[in-house]
Amino acid sequence: MSKEFVVAVCGATGAVGQEMLKVLEQRDFPYSKLIPMASARSAGKKVMCKGEEHTVVEMKEDSFEGVDIALFSAGGSTSEKFAPCAAKSGCVVVDNSSAWRMNDECPLVVPEVNPHDLDWHKGIIANPNCSTIQMMVALKPIHDEARIKRVVVSTYQAVSGTGQKAIEELENQVRRLMSGQPVVADVYPHQIAFNCLPQIDVFMDNGYTKEEMKMVNETTKIMGDPTIKVTATCVRVPVFYGHSESVNIETEEKLTADDVRALLAKSPGIIIEDYPEKKAYPMPINAAGEDATYIGRIREDETIENGLNMWIVSDNIRKGAALNTIQIAETLIERDLVRVP
Amino acid sequence: MSKEFVVAVCGATGAVGQEMLKVLEQRDFPYSKLIPMASARSAGKKVMCKGEEHTVVEMKEDSFEGVDIALFSAGGSTSEKFAPCAAKSGCVVVDNSSAWRMNDECPLVVPEVNPHDLDWHKGIIANPNCSTIQMMVALKPIHDEARIKRVVVSTYQAVSGTGQKAIEELENQVRRLMSGQPVVADVYPHQIAFNCLPQIDVFMDNGYTKEEMKMVNETTKIMGDPTIKVTATCVRVPVFYGHSESVNIETEEKLTADDVRALLAKSPGIIIEDYPEKKAYPMPINAAGEDATYIGRIREDETIENGLNMWIVSDNIRKGAALNTIQIAETLIERDLVRVP
Repeated sequence: MSKEFVVAVCGATGAVGQEMLKVLEQRDFPYSKLIPMASARSAGKKVMCKGEEHTVVEMKEDSFEGVDIALFSAGGSTSEKFAPCAAKSGCVVVDNSSAWRMNDECPLVVPEVNPHDLDWHKGIIANPNCSTIQMMVALKPIHDEARIKRVVVSTYQAVSGTGQKAIEELENQVRRLMSGQPVVADVYPHQIAFNCLPQIDVFMDNGYTKEEMKMVNETTKIMGDPTIKVTATCVRVPVFYGHSESVNIETEEKLTADDVRALLAKSPGIIIEDYPEKKAYPMPINAAGEDATYIGRIREDETIENGLNMWIVSDNIRKGAALNTIQIAETLIERDLVRVP
Repeated sequence: MSKEFVVAVCGATGAVGQEMLKVLEQRDFPYSKLIPMASARSAGKKVMCKGEEHTVVEMKEDSFEGVDIALFSAGGSTSEKFAPCAAKSGCVVVDNSSAWRMNDECPLVVPEVNPHDLDWHKGIIANPNCSTIQMMVALKPIHDEARIKRVVVSTYQAVSGTGQKAIEELENQVRRLMSGQPVVADVYPHQIAFNCLPQIDVFMDNGYTKEEMKMVNETTKIMGDPTIKVTATCVRVPVFYGHSESVNIETEEKLTADDVRALLAKSPGIIIEDYPEKKAYPMPINAAGEDATYIGRIREDETIENGLNMWIVSDNIRKGAALNTIQIAETLIERDLVRVP
């Protein structure tokens, strides 16, 4: 990694953009120049990275001349508009929105799972959905070892996945309820404080939400295996940071709970936290701010021949977004792929 | 229901006991005399029912002379000690603890599901676990119609299931966090505010919690069908009232989502709330204080031949405890079973 790169962070003032700057600093990402970009509304703001102050510039179609890598977290429509301009300028885009994920021209990558898919990129690489990423980190070693046939997942997702305004909404609702005041729901369709909302993103015609279908469709693309069947129920819970997932797995071949613990313990990006006797298991408050995907409550499910249950927790803003995006950029550098073919 | 009965509420000062008094009043339960009982510590306290004040008396072995029906919610060990004394005195016990649930001599009853099991009672009837009750209300009509083979359930359980002290713990933790103070966990092993705890009750040798195994074992007893396989992951979430469940079901015969909606809409104790276009689905804040089991997010699961997903929410203190107990007592009266054989 001796070469250094001109890096743009697009959407630098949002929750994920801010976390990207933090991760670039923490991992000492090899940039020669950092260009934070955002909409006209945020242009002129100051952001910090590696001890230096940078002024946010407005993202325009010609902003990407001379940029090597653009890390996008600016929403789907902005990404649809600007990512192709960036790629046309010879800049490799790693995009955190859902705009390019299911596009056949764009690899969808979790570096621990399918780094090889970066080899065929054409300028735009998609970062998967937060709930999908942490599940992929956990499932890939199991799939390699025993072939996963079916997954039933129920999520417990933090409000930070919706963005900064949702974090403020949960906090405001809690404060109002605690002082006996009526609650206003603005970001979410209903009160999130002390509640569970079984809706994340919009509803599709089949009755599933878009978030649930992302978990179904992104899984087969990332795993490179259309035979893995996933059914999902995605639920927002009153947690600030950290998505949790209750995952039931059916495999072709038998794995005991001990097999799974041993297998995952040596797999990348995973920390096993599975000590019932110590009441130790993954929890969102512990995963917040951390890089790893935490896995616990690993049990054999005796209701089917080769069944497993587990509980997967990770920081949705880090591994679920900013960290995975920057790990993709690092992998592009390692594999000498920082150029648009 | 012309006859009136002497009714004891045992554990009258606890969260469920208080709710029992409320339900007795709301349903105008036909008692000629009400005797609230509790431990020596709470004896002398005053409780209200049907506009009258009653003094709590200490529960002793000879307290049940002349009592027709005793509604117990006083914990497992108290119930183990006093329920047999009560039954020996000719008093029919409906017990809300887990002490008698799997005892072959004791029916385990959800009145909408297996009222006929009351016919063979020998003096002690068990009220099922809260998470099991609401799932049974939803699953029974489906099982009757299409035979359920397997259930994968993940729960989102409210702190009120643990009792009054847990309600206070969540509230105190939230207040402290909102004012930047460190949090103390006393009732739960870890902070519950803004967190998810994948542990309810103690761990068993097989890695499952006792709560999870209750859902597995109570289901087959209540349904009277040992072939129904259940695997459960039980999680505590920072919600005050109302348990939610994400339930995946495999049936012998095909049911469409519309079939299930039509079937459940005409089944007892259920309100269907399944209007994605209006963002209407069951939520714990709406179920709190209500009698019904709310069901929504009904979808076909295409990953198996006959699969269904649904979201089931009910007030864990009412249908999950106090209401179901009193419905059992009402059904005993209807079936003329208020006597110990």
